[in-house]
Amino acid sequence: MPEVTVVGLGLMGQALAQAFLAEGHATTVWNRSAGKAERLVAQGAILADSVRAAVVASPLVVVCVSDHQAVRAVLDPLADVLAGRVVVNLTSGTSEQARETARWASERGIGYLDGVIMDVPQGIGTTGAVLYYSGPQAGFDLHEPVLRSLGGATTYLGADPGLSSLYDMATLTMMWSILNGFLHGAALLGTANVPAATFAPAVAKGMATVAEWLPGYAEQIDDGKYPALDATIDTHLAAMEHLVQESEVLGVSVELPRFVKALADRAVAEGHGGEGYAALIEQFRRPIATRG
Amino acid sequence: MPEVTVVGLGLMGQALAQAFLAEGHATTVWNRSAGKAERLVAQGAILADSVRAAVVASPLVVVCVSDHQAVRAVLDPLADVLAGRVVVNLTSGTSEQARETARWASERGIGYLDGVIMDVPQGIGTTGAVLYYSGPQAGFDLHEPVLRSLGGATTYLGADPGLSSLYDMATLTMMWSILNGFLHGAALLGTANVPAATFAPAVAKGMATVAEWLPGYAEQIDDGKYPALDATIDTHLAAMEHLVQESEVLGVSVELPRFVKALADRAVAEGHGGEGYAALIEQFRRPIATRG
Ligand SMILES: NC(=O)c1ccc[n+]([C@@H]2O[C@H](COP(=O)([O-])OP(=O)(O)OC[C@H]3O[C@@H](n4cnc5c(N)ncnc54)[C@H](OP(=O)(O)O)[C@@H]3O)[C@@H](O)[C@H]2O)c1
Ligand SMILES: NC(=O)c1ccc[n+]([C@@H]2O[C@H](COP(=O)([O-])OP(=O)(O)OC[C@H]3O[C@@H](n4cnc5c(N)ncnc54)[C@H](OP(=O)(O)O)[C@@H]3O)[C@@H](O)[C@H]2O)c1
Repeated sequence: MPEVTVVGLGLMGQALAQAFLAEGHATTVWNRSAGKAERLVAQGAILADSVRAAVVASPLVVVCVSDHQAVRAVLDPLADVLAGRVVVNLTSGTSEQARETARWASERGIGYLDGVIMDVPQGIGTTGAVLYYSGPQAGFDLHEPVLRSLGGATTYLGADPGLSSLYDMATLTMMWSILNGFLHGAALLGTANVPAATFAPAVAKGMATVAEWLPGYAEQIDDGKYPALDATIDTHLAAMEHLVQESEVLGVSVELPRFVKALADRAVAEGHGGEGYAALIEQFRRPIATRG
Repeated sequence: MPEVTVVGLGLMGQALAQAFLAEGHATTVWNRSAGKAERLVAQGAILADSVRAAVVASPLVVVCVSDHQAVRAVLDPLADVLAGRVVVNLTSGTSEQARETARWASERGIGYLDGVIMDVPQGIGTTGAVLYYSGPQAGFDLHEPVLRSLGGATTYLGADPGLSSLYDMATLTMMWSILNGFLHGAALLGTANVPAATFAPAVAKGMATVAEWLPGYAEQIDDGKYPALDATIDTHLAAMEHLVQESEVLGVSVELPRFVKALADRAVAEGHGGEGYAALIEQFRRPIATRG
């Protein structure tokens, strides 16, 4: 079985090492501060004396530390031994940071893949766990069998190393938006003593409905044409006004409704009132200061 | 078959009348301006000479016009003939407006149910169509068989006539939040030329994942205790900072990320950084001005 090294044994790093061990890979581990490898060593991991020794032990080095600054702090002094190996960086960050770290690696002859983990440590190693990778395809193809130990939904996105972080960001903005919508809805219903537990199934049904609309909206976004398939932005706006009013009268937060309405107001002011909701993509594409 | 009257033959009113006809109900219709009943009459509807004649024709009067003001403009002069009948108002509005119209009806001895339609006209009459009703249970029980013609998921929520509008508002705030999150994510990925059509399936998967978390969050909201089941708000905040930075660097709108982050910042400032995301319910329950 191919060898792998895991650098960084935080909550996530430990889960990664454990998943490699579970698949029978010879797994070398290292962590800045002592004590975090004990459980892994008991499961068969090899604890390296130094991060240099850890890197030398395997052709594939998986790094999972707090942020990209920490990645560079750990790897900068090791460029000589990293050359010719592949670093898979599973540390979260922006796409810009991923591209910078990729440049740093490329200039030193180090193979590099940037990855993101779309799951919690408990999910690592399960068939449902989604992990995205981006960077040179050759590095991914070479190590895919080992990387697949971390999750069944292991997906290569493309050569641009920033892609996996971009997918991460795009998914997170969705996730927080959904959760905030749920919380605002629960706050509204809470004023009539409707428990959130009663609202949750209605939300799940609503989410499934909205999910069905997305391919149609996506097509419009890619085409740059937004005919109203169901309701126009003008129609949405009338209901948004009800939502602002409702939130004000009931004394719950009006920030979310005002944010929602402000976007639609601007689209209407720019002449998109008769188009469908997907026309609002223009409001997200440009920072407000540069708008016409 | 019981008789029913439909007042207001806009896009939605026509769909309602058509669904009643399809189930074999004797359906009397009326619209303020002429010409909108033609297709319905061809299908067997009875076009009344006046709105008064329309009301007199049936024990159940379904009203679907632009807004609550229009409802009152139409119904106010008819209180004498409406007394003893049941008005089902499927016009959208706030819960406060629904309660006001219910009071107006109650003071005049008119039966009243407030309803909302969670679907487009094309969906009316299908088994999947969700319609919510609230108001006195007796009125719903009496007319449920007729109302069920409009959608298979016909649901009675309770005696408070404001409940159906509240559910409507709570569902809409979710819907717009999801769509905005999708659009912001698509704008982010668009900077790397990833088509929205490529993002849409990832989103659908992400939505299904988030949907699974909601019952757990709902339980915490109802209990008023928010232990971090997965990530703490502090952990979310670190990723939110990446999202703000990513959006700034890529030149897409930063409004949504800043809004998301501001909520978490406030929760952390109030000492909730170590709790789970559901603790943010407090930020939605209170208008910002009244916060401690
Ligand atoms: N946990 C999750 O649910 C999750 C999910 C998806 C992605 N992630 C990402 O995975 C990464 C790690 O998360 P985690 O949950 O494992 O965090 P964590 O438990 O806080 O662990 C952080 C790790 O980074 C190490 N580290 C920090 N600065 C360092 C430096 N300058 N030099 C060397 N090592 C350093 C720490 O070493 P010490 O032990 O010596 O402090 C520790 O091993 C983060 O980028 C996170 O966003 C986490
Ligand atoms: N369409 C949808 O997808 C949908 C979905 C859910 C809920 N709804 C709700 O259903 C209601 C009707 O929507 P719609 O799509 O049918 O709108 P619409 O096509 O614009 O029709 C509006 C109707 O209201 C009538 N009306 C307006 N003011 C009036 C007044 N003062 N007196 C008498 N009649 C008046 C209009 O009569 P004239 O023909 O004489 O103008 C017309 O029949 C709205 O509250 C809407 O929010 C619609």
